[in-house]
Amino acid sequence: MEIDLVAENKQIVLKSYVNGSPVETDMELKLGNRVKLEAPKGSKGVLVKNLYLSCDPYMRGRMQDFHASYIPPFTPGSVIEGFGVSKVVDSDDPNFKKGEFVTGLTNWEEYTLILKTGQLRKIQQDDAIPLSYHVGLLGMPGITAYAGFYEVCAPKKGDYVYVSAASGAVGQLVGQLAKLHGCYVVGSAGTSHKVHLIKNKLGFDEAFNYKEELDLEAALARYFPQGIDIYFDNVGGSMLDAALANMRVHGRVAVCGMVSQNSRTDKQSFSHMFSVISKRITIKGFLQSDFTELYPRFLEDITGFYKQGKIVYIENMNDGLETAPAAFAALFSGKNVGKQVIRVASE
Amino acid sequence: MEIDLVAENKQIVLKSYVNGSPVETDMELKLGNRVKLEAPKGSKGVLVKNLYLSCDPYMRGRMQDFHASYIPPFTPGSVIEGFGVSKVVDSDDPNFKKGEFVTGLTNWEEYTLILKTGQLRKIQQDDAIPLSYHVGLLGMPGITAYAGFYEVCAPKKGDYVYVSAASGAVGQLVGQLAKLHGCYVVGSAGTSHKVHLIKNKLGFDEAFNYKEELDLEAALARYFPQGIDIYFDNVGGSMLDAALANMRVHGRVAVCGMVSQNSRTDKQSFSHMFSVISKRITIKGFLQSDFTELYPRFLEDITGFYKQGKIVYIENMNDGLETAPAAFAALFSGKNVGKQVIRVASE
Ligand SMILES: NC(=O)c1ccc[n+]([C@@H]2O[C@H](COP(=O)([O-])OP(=O)(O)OC[C@H]3O[C@@H](n4cnc5c(N)ncnc54)[C@H](OP(=O)(O)O)[C@@H]3O)[C@@H](O)[C@H]2O)c1
Ligand SMILES: NC(=O)c1ccc[n+]([C@@H]2O[C@H](COP(=O)([O-])OP(=O)(O)OC[C@H]3O[C@@H](n4cnc5c(N)ncnc54)[C@H](OP(=O)(O)O)[C@@H]3O)[C@@H](O)[C@H]2O)c1
Repeated sequence: MEIDLVAENKQIVLKSYVNGSPVETDMELKLGNRVKLEAPKGSKGVLVKNLYLSCDPYMRGRMQDFHASYIPPFTPGSVIEGFGVSKVVDSDDPNFKKGEFVTGLTNWEEYTLILKTGQLRKIQQDDAIPLSYHVGLLGMPGITAYAGFYEVCAPKKGDYVYVSAASGAVGQLVGQLAKLHGCYVVGSAGTSHKVHLIKNKLGFDEAFNYKEELDLEAALARYFPQGIDIYFDNVGGSMLDAALANMRVHGRVAVCGMVSQNSRTDKQSFSHMFSVISKRITIKGFLQSDFTELYPRFLEDITGFYKQGKIVYIENMNDGLETAPAAFAALFSGKNVGKQVIRVASE
Repeated sequence: MEIDLVAENKQIVLKSYVNGSPVETDMELKLGNRVKLEAPKGSKGVLVKNLYLSCDPYMRGRMQDFHASYIPPFTPGSVIEGFGVSKVVDSDDPNFKKGEFVTGLTNWEEYTLILKTGQLRKIQQDDAIPLSYHVGLLGMPGITAYAGFYEVCAPKKGDYVYVSAASGAVGQLVGQLAKLHGCYVVGSAGTSHKVHLIKNKLGFDEAFNYKEELDLEAALARYFPQGIDIYFDNVGGSMLDAALANMRVHGRVAVCGMVSQNSRTDKQSFSHMFSVISKRITIKGFLQSDFTELYPRFLEDITGFYKQGKIVYIENMNDGLETAPAAFAALFSGKNVGKQVIRVASE
């Protein structure tokens, strides 16, 4: 009966290292792979069926031939690794049982033998919370927003808060948390549809389309005549410079990401770096991985907010593993609207 | 006998607004001015004889036609204002008596009627401490180093500390405080003489001449094979970028000054801004004027360290008010060796 335990296993592999912004053709669907649907005895691993896969901008860093980063690169020709929500098919780890749902690092394929089970988190199923949220609202982007806002921004009620990439996986939550905290919140994004969602669905006070602004500094001055207390920076580059020009005294910049710089090889140039002194600005970079000890509190708080209807979450669901290359590339052209997720299977 | 109360009052005036690095001829000695040596009744002011005047890089900011800064510009044709040590000649303020020594904002001239006496600090004369130190070690540069190091850098014993403009008024004290704190300290400066002083007189662990380095990033990597925990930045620009490249995880950059940018109109460009995220760096600008509440503790600590021989202080004394324009310009060509002071009179 061994035939029952073997399945076809479609995969998404990196074709070759990426320069500039990733495009769909940097990855490809690989057929013909077959997998035994078991966790080998002694492996201590779990064999999972992948349900949802997450497209995250940091993965671009792993598509370069650069080995000195905080995370190693992918290997061209090999399957891509990323966060996912999966169902345990077979387990050689006593902590996990067949049928349980887990989230953590898995591969962009239908089935994965996960050996590093220590990084997996078991999902308590909850009808009120879509499983896919565990790679978004309740996953890595969620803790990024939570830790970034509460631990890095030092927010106070009444603060003027600006969020770039504000409709995205991280930005949408930052802005909503800031509103709950009693801040005045403005977001920016690259389409009028996103601007509409930021104002009307996510409940920011204001939003604007940065692509329609010839002068980012003037745009921010318009939305923040009093200046900015907190800039939650998802994009870097000229937007960061424009924000520096508009910060208030003792303003704080949480540097979360620099997605605008991925396609650039030139230097980032700043006209307003001196503001850091004259306005006593703090610029603080952070990585969510430094805040794992916050996870229990984060899950409790955000689950609570969500169930009480205090926050919403916008997902961009892409159906089928084969959509993954385009879905990933979309992050860098701004085509995703909300958290970019690939549904590989429903259950 | 009114003739006794009137004196000639040589002044240094700004000729016109400055672009780029200040040069000697941006200022000039103005003769012919006469002053009554009295504090008029009802003025609540003090008439002082200026003994020492301080050349400070921030004053360049006041030589531009730029009114939106934290401090207003000078007026061309008018006397320059700056920190000084002065002796009270006549007083209409009950808090000050004739013969007392004071330090605070005064003018670049022989005698000044100071009306804002609230900002003056009385100097307790002490044979062990030169009066001029009250514009250096125990004055504005001193509190800058003290507050910047202890309050902004979050120093720990064993930290790797880098200081630029390390032989200057601020830098020399920062490095010595860092040594006393148990840090490993490297400084940079623009001449081999300064490098010698930094190592042999100021007691830094290492020093280098940045003008002899083609590649600042490589130079810092040589002096900090383990990376930098704290960069005390006096210069900004490409040195800041090189330091970002060499910071350790959770490194801190205290941005004190950007003296390298004064002569530049182009943007500051950075290749290593992404390090702020990947290494979770904090960049924090500060102004000493935010730390006035530290003054008593600062004076006590630094006076103590100095008297116990734990720190030294290098001054560059310039004799005569007429030397002031060249002395000031020297800050921007690096000709000063240590704290740049003008001796207007001995007592
Ligand atoms: N520090 C951490 O630990 C951590 C963790 C997670 C994520 N991040 C960072 O957080 C940022 C947001 O991540 P996310 O997952 O929430 O992604 P996302 O916002 O859902 O998707 C990326 C968005 O970035 C914007 N974008 C793309 N290219 C741009 C450009 N050249 N200039 C300006 N905006 C551009 C696009 O939105 P627009 O329509 O607005 O242009 C795009 O939709 C990224 O920089 C990511 O690297 C950091
Ligand atoms: N934030 C505050 O509250 C505060 C308060 C006081 C001072 N500051 C700042 O602290 C810094 C040091 O001030 P200081 O009074 O101690 O001055 P200083 O170091 O005694 O004198 C200025 C020194 O800067 C260096 N320099 C000049 N042009 C340069 C350039 N293009 N590139 C690199 N270095 C250059 C020169 O030394 P080298 O031989 O090393 O080139 C020069 O001797 C300044 O930036 C100043 O504005 C800030």
